[in-house]
Amino acid sequence: MASRLTAIYRIRADEGSIDRRADAIATEQSVEMPISAIDDPQILADIVGRVAGIKEIGEHLFEARIDLAVTTTGLEAGQLMNMLFGNTSIHDDVVLHDVEFPPEMFSTFAGPRHGIDGLRALTGANGRAMTCSALKPQGLSPARLAELAGQLARGGLDFIKDDHGLADQAYSPFAERVRACARAVREARAATGRHTLYVPSLSGDLDRLRMQIDLVRENSLAMVLIAPMIVGIPALSALVNDYPEIAFMAHPAMAGAARIAPPLLLGRLFRLFGADATIFPNHGGRFGYSRETCRQLAEAAAASWGGLRMTAPVPAGGMTLERVPEMLDFYGPDVILLIGGGLLAARERLTESTAAFTRSVQQHQYK
Amino acid sequence: MASRLTAIYRIRADEGSIDRRADAIATEQSVEMPISAIDDPQILADIVGRVAGIKEIGEHLFEARIDLAVTTTGLEAGQLMNMLFGNTSIHDDVVLHDVEFPPEMFSTFAGPRHGIDGLRALTGANGRAMTCSALKPQGLSPARLAELAGQLARGGLDFIKDDHGLADQAYSPFAERVRACARAVREARAATGRHTLYVPSLSGDLDRLRMQIDLVRENSLAMVLIAPMIVGIPALSALVNDYPEIAFMAHPAMAGAARIAPPLLLGRLFRLFGADATIFPNHGGRFGYSRETCRQLAEAAAASWGGLRMTAPVPAGGMTLERVPEMLDFYGPDVILLIGGGLLAARERLTESTAAFTRSVQQHQYK
Repeated sequence: MASRLTAIYRIRADEGSIDRRADAIATEQSVEMPISAIDDPQILADIVGRVAGIKEIGEHLFEARIDLAVTTTGLEAGQLMNMLFGNTSIHDDVVLHDVEFPPEMFSTFAGPRHGIDGLRALTGANGRAMTCSALKPQGLSPARLAELAGQLARGGLDFIKDDHGLADQAYSPFAERVRACARAVREARAATGRHTLYVPSLSGDLDRLRMQIDLVRENSLAMVLIAPMIVGIPALSALVNDYPEIAFMAHPAMAGAARIAPPLLLGRLFRLFGADATIFPNHGGRFGYSRETCRQLAEAAAASWGGLRMTAPVPAGGMTLERVPEMLDFYGPDVILLIGGGLLAARERLTESTAAFTRSVQQHQYK
Repeated sequence: MASRLTAIYRIRADEGSIDRRADAIATEQSVEMPISAIDDPQILADIVGRVAGIKEIGEHLFEARIDLAVTTTGLEAGQLMNMLFGNTSIHDDVVLHDVEFPPEMFSTFAGPRHGIDGLRALTGANGRAMTCSALKPQGLSPARLAELAGQLARGGLDFIKDDHGLADQAYSPFAERVRACARAVREARAATGRHTLYVPSLSGDLDRLRMQIDLVRENSLAMVLIAPMIVGIPALSALVNDYPEIAFMAHPAMAGAARIAPPLLLGRLFRLFGADATIFPNHGGRFGYSRETCRQLAEAAAASWGGLRMTAPVPAGGMTLERVPEMLDFYGPDVILLIGGGLLAARERLTESTAAFTRSVQQHQYK
């Protein structure tokens, strides 16, 4: 019998139409043609999507479980996304809510190569939450960004990432920026004794991404930032396979409010494809995720799942020093707290403000 | 003065909050930090996004024009998407509605290498709409798909594309399928005298995409199908640059979830990045696009724009032979009509049914 994965869709419909609607999705996400026009019995048995269950979960809201043949994914990351939601993404009455995978998917994609434990090993941050800030604004020269990086690093952070807007721009070419910031952070490490990681932001097609990772390695760096929905899921998957020694932090640009539930996309799927950490907008910040979405996302990233390593949740997006205790109590210690603009606003007191952040995390007494 | 592009967002808000909301988007899509924390005058002048105008277009619905610095895009396709909508995609009160580009964007991305005229030259289809069908269902062997391809080709189509679900699966490996279908279509061409193009569907990361295009060329084929939102916009852009002799047909899979207006994404942006033809769900089919959306999309693909070649609109998604005259009157002759399942349902009369389709297009008298 052909192996199946189960895609779980949430569908706005009424009771009279939900059966037909679920059948239509099962067809759309598999053979994409009238079933009556298919005469091959093996395709009908092994390839056509199958509605495995429908339940009403609210007014005019249903959850349909649809079994899709694993073989249609070709065990390739992009084609998996295509089979899960390719055409159905065009229907605005449907959200891809969750997916259940059979074991072979976990051996194929294998998830994070480092995971939370690997990030702790790289940074030496044991028994506590980890800390991160961001280099911005874009428009600054490599020298100015490096200056900021040094000031942040002297505050004792675990990670300093490029803003996801930093790419390979005329005012700050990738190679020059990475060299300058890596040096500044290296010098600060010598002063603080911390193992702060500088995390450059990658962009472009797979050739450029590889050239950028080669530069990252030349600068003895161990981790990169990548926006999977911008570079493409297949590119993330290729890099994770090609560079097992590099850790990957995923950014939610172009991903957040897609009609794929954020806990699934930013938590589970990015984890499956190898993200060691996943940034998402924390509740009560600049973006509209609820507490419940954030909790589910953090769980999806770090819960026991198919034997994969845990992906570190990185709540962010307008966070401030004041929120640190509340966030730590909410997420627990297996988290990376990211404060960007909230620290940079301290300007000439940037290092002190950063030190207050890292101290606050270190000294936190969990409720 | 720094060159700017104008991104046009549609925002649900009330009169009291729209100014603040538009300012927040201008910040989010540029420096992504509090403006008050930026002291560099050049960044404030040249990099920070600027609200150029806001107008009310409906109840609690506003259109904001926001000028973004071209230099922040690094003139790279993925980073352009990032700057247009990366973080703002996470806000569900905003749609990216349209973009206006300065001339240098058109010289950088250059658009379709063939366009409608190039496709007419390849197929010999002059002075009339073009015709297309799809090979499916997935699950068929290469031999069975080739048989279908031959039957379709003998009906006199201009294009026969792989279903977008056909990737590189165990039951139909890419290399074998392309060889078999290319041969079947070549043999049918000899019989019909038509220049039917077989259009294989590509999938995977840039390495695989290139290997697949190399196989396409070995089989003397001239056009491929690609889903930009699955392989990633940077991969599309790279292939269009690397293979100017190949024509690209874009598929809308995963393009519906992004809250980017379809005329902009499937029409304008796919065109900018080089799609020679763009498939979209026609109104009144399996998907919910309105007549107005379809008309705008076809216009965005083919209207005079920055000196770019015209992209052929390909309305599809549950089309039938009966709708051909109405669709031709709606879209005019600069279109590729795509009927997939609607022809395949004819089974043993597939060639006759296809011939009726191509005849109907050829003999149409426009209203």
